[in-house]
Amino acid sequence: MKAAIFGGKGIVNIGERPDPVIRESTDAIVRVVRSCVCGSDLWYYRGLSPRTAGGPIGHEFIGIVDKVGKDVKNIADGDFVISPFTYNDGTCINCKKGWQANCIHGGVYGTGYVDGGQGEMVRVPLADGTLVRVKQTGFSEEKLRSMLALSDVMCTGHHAAVSAGVKEGDTVAVVGDGAVGLCAVIASKRLGAKRIISISRNPSRQKLAREFGATDIVPERGDAAIQKVLELTDGFGADAAMECVGTGESMNTAFGIARVGAVVGAVGVPHEVRVPIETAIFRNVGLRGGIAPARKYIPELLDDALSGRINPGRVFDMQTDLEHIADAYKAMDERRAVKAILNISDI
Amino acid sequence: MKAAIFGGKGIVNIGERPDPVIRESTDAIVRVVRSCVCGSDLWYYRGLSPRTAGGPIGHEFIGIVDKVGKDVKNIADGDFVISPFTYNDGTCINCKKGWQANCIHGGVYGTGYVDGGQGEMVRVPLADGTLVRVKQTGFSEEKLRSMLALSDVMCTGHHAAVSAGVKEGDTVAVVGDGAVGLCAVIASKRLGAKRIISISRNPSRQKLAREFGATDIVPERGDAAIQKVLELTDGFGADAAMECVGTGESMNTAFGIARVGAVVGAVGVPHEVRVPIETAIFRNVGLRGGIAPARKYIPELLDDALSGRINPGRVFDMQTDLEHIADAYKAMDERRAVKAILNISDI
Repeated sequence: MKAAIFGGKGIVNIGERPDPVIRESTDAIVRVVRSCVCGSDLWYYRGLSPRTAGGPIGHEFIGIVDKVGKDVKNIADGDFVISPFTYNDGTCINCKKGWQANCIHGGVYGTGYVDGGQGEMVRVPLADGTLVRVKQTGFSEEKLRSMLALSDVMCTGHHAAVSAGVKEGDTVAVVGDGAVGLCAVIASKRLGAKRIISISRNPSRQKLAREFGATDIVPERGDAAIQKVLELTDGFGADAAMECVGTGESMNTAFGIARVGAVVGAVGVPHEVRVPIETAIFRNVGLRGGIAPARKYIPELLDDALSGRINPGRVFDMQTDLEHIADAYKAMDERRAVKAILNISDI
Repeated sequence: MKAAIFGGKGIVNIGERPDPVIRESTDAIVRVVRSCVCGSDLWYYRGLSPRTAGGPIGHEFIGIVDKVGKDVKNIADGDFVISPFTYNDGTCINCKKGWQANCIHGGVYGTGYVDGGQGEMVRVPLADGTLVRVKQTGFSEEKLRSMLALSDVMCTGHHAAVSAGVKEGDTVAVVGDGAVGLCAVIASKRLGAKRIISISRNPSRQKLAREFGATDIVPERGDAAIQKVLELTDGFGADAAMECVGTGESMNTAFGIARVGAVVGAVGVPHEVRVPIETAIFRNVGLRGGIAPARKYIPELLDDALSGRINPGRVFDMQTDLEHIADAYKAMDERRAVKAILNISDI
């Protein structure tokens, strides 16, 4: 089969990998319909996170089940499925408590013996625990995109909002205008936030943030952004702050714009982040979040995505295919695209 | 009046200060009955936090109201009162949301124009918002001590437990065996924790922790303590972790012993603390806490303290008076005493 292969800093190739086979009786093989490139893929693409060259990549996909192992009960050949970006058994203590991305027996796609999502086929371990079957059929391209967004970014943005405790009537602020930050705007609106401040300096992302529900745009960064959000909130700060970048500056901004007693919902993969502990302690600002339990959230968000009440698929502003995946990484690296979708096969 | 005066690193003197007078119509003057020395006082005493010499110190006291300003409505001459360690108006947006220690118009005793708690009299600003009147009379020494503990350490330990989300049936772990850590044990038991692990290497503090409800004692520190707590919890960690020290090591330990999805309730005044952000994000371990809204908690905890259902006053293992306050600081600095109470006047 064809699959994307990491070739080292700045290099993504399309290559051949063995067609996946059932290795464990709990596996499923999924033919990928749509996949995409994640902001977190850019960390190793840019050489900022270590990653050995030569292996498969990508962790977001939707597709059709091709084959299942003999112990798979909930999923059958031909089912249309959404996979969260991590696989999980659904039965361990962490899964049972709702932390499926921290499954004791789970992991992330594209590591070890597990295929990446950016390829024609994926062996999904622990298929019963992992995959979410979608019963409806005849999806429009728009709905396919929104379901693909549930694989990671929409659930991660939702996790930022849930972790920050966003509730009805709140004034909230989102640091980061990438796909996750934009999804945090969607999630905040869905959870009832009245005022949503998006910190974004990119005109097309500002526009999308507004369409998703942002009521205020702050183009400043760092201390200037903090100052601006405080001005917008009578000097008190936001009821909930979301950190959707993963840098030291963005974490600092998120704490700086959080009101006394608020929580920063942080979902950015951290790179040289120092939590401003003095703000945390002296202003009682909390920190929650982390890798999102997408497997928990997908069923919660699916109806809204299918009905169009939320449209997270709109974060995809570039469409290409496996053959041109290098272009997708390049466009995202250069911030010409928010997020690139890959058309792998027809439904 | 006589009051403790900070004399610079390692020096606390007893000196003369002007008798306090009503400066604002919302003030009350309180004659101090009992005061005490706080673990946080040791930071400047040891020269580890900056503090200008020559001013009053101390922030915990109970006493009898001597005089009130004309706009004070809830408190009258002769009332027996507990003061939280911070004063607050009770009406600002932070107070209304339950963050009285972050009152917009409030502050901590012993700073600026405000008297310290370690003295014969205190001018209490914003008396209606700050002081908690205790209607009962005829207190035993034991009850006086427990009420004094509500001024700070018991509420701070409670804040650690509340922030960490301690609930019925939990297995919890407390980092720190100072007065606050011991009070976090009391609070955890009160909130229904089934198993309480106290990280303590001091035999007398271990004993007190057990009497307060600790079921397991871990004498190790740092990575060894993490290892031990994981062993005690089947490798998963505690449902809730409390950080009651304020050092980098203690914060690291607290994150290391927290299970996936748990929250570290942190109340130690931070000194060179780095939050282990990778643990936070990749294990979904949260951080909450800070300076405790004691004014909110005192009324909640008062009945239990007066009825003897909790006995936080037992953290006082040294008793002296204002004349010998230097001995109290010295004993706590040398860890010969957990917490020293000062008998200032009779009730």
